[in-house]
Amino acid sequence: MSPIPGLNRVGLLGGGVIGGGWAARFLLNGVDVVLFDPDPEAPRKVGEVIDNARRAFAKMTMAPLPKEGELRIVTTPQEAVVGVDFIQESAPERLELKRSILTRASAAADPSVVFASSTSGLLPTQIQQGMDHPERLVVGHPFNPVYLLPLVEICGGEATSDAAKARAVDVYTAIGMRPLVLGKEIDGFVADRLLEALWREALWLLNDGVATAEQIDDAIRFGAGLRWSFMGTFLVYRIAGGEAGMRHFMNQFGPTLQWPWTKLTDVPELTDELLDRIVAQSDEQARDAGFRELEVLRDDCLVAVIQGLRSVGYGAGEVLAGYEKALFARAHVPSDEPDHSMPLLTHETRIPADWVDYNGHTNDSRYAQLSCDAADAFLRRIGMDAEYLRGGHSYFTVESHLSYIAQSGAGDAVYVTSQVLGHDSKRIHLFNRMHRADDDALIATGEHMYLHVDTTTNRTVPAQQHILDRIAAIAGPHAELDRPVQAGRYVGAPRTAE
Amino acid sequence: MSPIPGLNRVGLLGGGVIGGGWAARFLLNGVDVVLFDPDPEAPRKVGEVIDNARRAFAKMTMAPLPKEGELRIVTTPQEAVVGVDFIQESAPERLELKRSILTRASAAADPSVVFASSTSGLLPTQIQQGMDHPERLVVGHPFNPVYLLPLVEICGGEATSDAAKARAVDVYTAIGMRPLVLGKEIDGFVADRLLEALWREALWLLNDGVATAEQIDDAIRFGAGLRWSFMGTFLVYRIAGGEAGMRHFMNQFGPTLQWPWTKLTDVPELTDELLDRIVAQSDEQARDAGFRELEVLRDDCLVAVIQGLRSVGYGAGEVLAGYEKALFARAHVPSDEPDHSMPLLTHETRIPADWVDYNGHTNDSRYAQLSCDAADAFLRRIGMDAEYLRGGHSYFTVESHLSYIAQSGAGDAVYVTSQVLGHDSKRIHLFNRMHRADDDALIATGEHMYLHVDTTTNRTVPAQQHILDRIAAIAGPHAELDRPVQAGRYVGAPRTAE
Repeated sequence: MSPIPGLNRVGLLGGGVIGGGWAARFLLNGVDVVLFDPDPEAPRKVGEVIDNARRAFAKMTMAPLPKEGELRIVTTPQEAVVGVDFIQESAPERLELKRSILTRASAAADPSVVFASSTSGLLPTQIQQGMDHPERLVVGHPFNPVYLLPLVEICGGEATSDAAKARAVDVYTAIGMRPLVLGKEIDGFVADRLLEALWREALWLLNDGVATAEQIDDAIRFGAGLRWSFMGTFLVYRIAGGEAGMRHFMNQFGPTLQWPWTKLTDVPELTDELLDRIVAQSDEQARDAGFRELEVLRDDCLVAVIQGLRSVGYGAGEVLAGYEKALFARAHVPSDEPDHSMPLLTHETRIPADWVDYNGHTNDSRYAQLSCDAADAFLRRIGMDAEYLRGGHSYFTVESHLSYIAQSGAGDAVYVTSQVLGHDSKRIHLFNRMHRADDDALIATGEHMYLHVDTTTNRTVPAQQHILDRIAAIAGPHAELDRPVQAGRYVGAPRTAE
Repeated sequence: MSPIPGLNRVGLLGGGVIGGGWAARFLLNGVDVVLFDPDPEAPRKVGEVIDNARRAFAKMTMAPLPKEGELRIVTTPQEAVVGVDFIQESAPERLELKRSILTRASAAADPSVVFASSTSGLLPTQIQQGMDHPERLVVGHPFNPVYLLPLVEICGGEATSDAAKARAVDVYTAIGMRPLVLGKEIDGFVADRLLEALWREALWLLNDGVATAEQIDDAIRFGAGLRWSFMGTFLVYRIAGGEAGMRHFMNQFGPTLQWPWTKLTDVPELTDELLDRIVAQSDEQARDAGFRELEVLRDDCLVAVIQGLRSVGYGAGEVLAGYEKALFARAHVPSDEPDHSMPLLTHETRIPADWVDYNGHTNDSRYAQLSCDAADAFLRRIGMDAEYLRGGHSYFTVESHLSYIAQSGAGDAVYVTSQVLGHDSKRIHLFNRMHRADDDALIATGEHMYLHVDTTTNRTVPAQQHILDRIAAIAGPHAELDRPVQAGRYVGAPRTAE
């Protein structure tokens, strides 16, 4: 039984890249899927899409996903639509093929069940012809990968009922999507017309030898594409208009549209009436947000997107990473050993957005991660490098204790210091303090015991002498430091004065 | 003295939105700026851009930024170019005005200093006419906001030297940008031609009443715009082509370009020669990355971008936040009470590949995450749902102890059970056992203390009665269970028999 009321099982007609993406999105939302695809390879192909989706969802959210739905693959359209609560057609983009499948399927389905077509450009009025109860056919046009991109364009044909559109909105919203209901039925709907316009210009640029495929892509992903991930052109240009807003922008830059900048320069005449409409719609879109407010929002989004991409090491994130490397290289690096008369600074980072949980601050398990990253830095410092690991030795953690003292949130700069509490030839007892960088507040502590192991036998063995020497050099001065009040605590121990 | 060799001071001609953005980027990189702008409001306007940039940079990077450069605003072009190492012109987009400023400035500047123009569409061959040493004029076209977007298009005119282009590349790279050197000089260069094509189509859609400004923007930012923040159209379409790649995609979707999808449908003829070039350039762009590899990269970037936007609560991030809220609300308590004469099964999952560390098995901090996820499921079970959280109450973790007992690896199915060790009106003492599903081996344990808090004051308060009743119903039978040997351990405690 699906956790979404009224959506226990869906029927999918077609299991290609789009149909497979739909299958993944429904299954991960706990909805059972019956999928029709005549391709004998369909089970493998759909399975691969689902594997990708499972992996991406696990990364994307910590929210409690329901138990996965069950997938059944069938060989006729009729089998896919009996006893289901919603039907999504994603057959190849040929009108006659879609009509043939939908005619057969709609005759077999319960008359109240809504059919949505994934078509990226065919008109619903044409698609619904010949269907049993054509009023229940809507276009629900998704974007690849369907399991990650929220957009789905909803468009009705002449015969489509409002109820069918409302049902599609409800279904897509329940599985985490963002429906965009269009008022007019046109070829290509809205999104693909915009995409095609850019694609056509891209092909001209390549055709005319102005730029290569890679240069054209770079011109998008390092520039305007970063903005388009959260704001469309109208809002971006409104901000560019500054204090004077949209009318100023149109007056200043409208005329450049007439310049010979593209292969095709036919533009709507910028009449007063059209200008008024653009300005009014832009005002409506901005709600009451002023130009400065939008500017800060734009910058916050850009920072978040670029930082997100840095974690993947791609696109603008790769540029940022390279830039930061240069900044570090240019900064003054102390060449000598750090001062061991205080805990070692072992880790500095910022709290990533996905570390924040439903309480609005960093999830407790992420302090374990921070402390672990700091401990890894400590182990590297005492000589546990890649070569040492290849030699069949490593330190394994045997136990940890964490105290959560104050809070931190997304974007907060934090740093971690490490103090050696004890050591012998096989063990290191380490204590880490996690601080907010802004005010140096102690936000959490981590206490860990490490055992040195032979990784070929998984048995405890003494560490090599050069490792032990480095530990001793740090542990000696650290023994003079105060013992942290959190050290040696067990869970539920009475609280001592701090 | 700037930390960038050979770039101590730059001269900026024009201090509008673009010129101010350049000033901010150079200053934050430790480069002194002399800025010419005749507008008496220039100091205020430039100051506001610099404030925005300072704020954004502080959020964007923790790398050590150099001491900020010094800004001096002057009233003639000549003053701005004496004794500087690089000059960036960002005057209004009128050819005669730019020429007039550049003619005066180039006569005063050292002949070896490179001039770059921020023009978004004028040709460098025209701009450089009349300049002293015109060979040193290049276009360096940035994008708003200049201090955040990495892209800068570099384009030479007929007189431009290769040395001038190389110098511009070096300067922009040093301040964290991504130069795109164009081989051909055309109106609008590459990026703006692509932007204008999309903008023109957007204006048609609005003009024809197909969609509003907000709908058009939504059609971008919830769909293709998310992809464009890291991959351009060519690479995205290559992935869409699947195993068969770019040629397959072009064969399948090339013809749709001829469909009446946009107001302007003139497209280059897809000759064999053009197809071959597209495919060859796409291969070149993909390097040796296969389709599956690119698909995973695309998904990782999308996840990172959407998560980044969630931290801002905007666009696709707002959609994700709303979806997660619904997931929490739906994660309801099972109606039939499980058997409380044994620990509760609270969490089941598989170890994701990225949880495995250099030791080849699950990183210790991930057991904290597993245990935390199980505890969250326990808290939902006793009634801490979305409504309870909205009501201003939650449980916060105060301390945790983890014991690592056996190993697990990527893909291993694991499950977690939870046992209540103690509770009162404000506290829950929970013990979690993590098991490999294959052989039921105990791989780790987690012991946690939770405090019930009023989230508006962050003070400890008793939980509501229905929560306490549910805890009691579980804790009663759990009190009869054996106390786990790992419970009450402190780090380094002598090991008891197990």
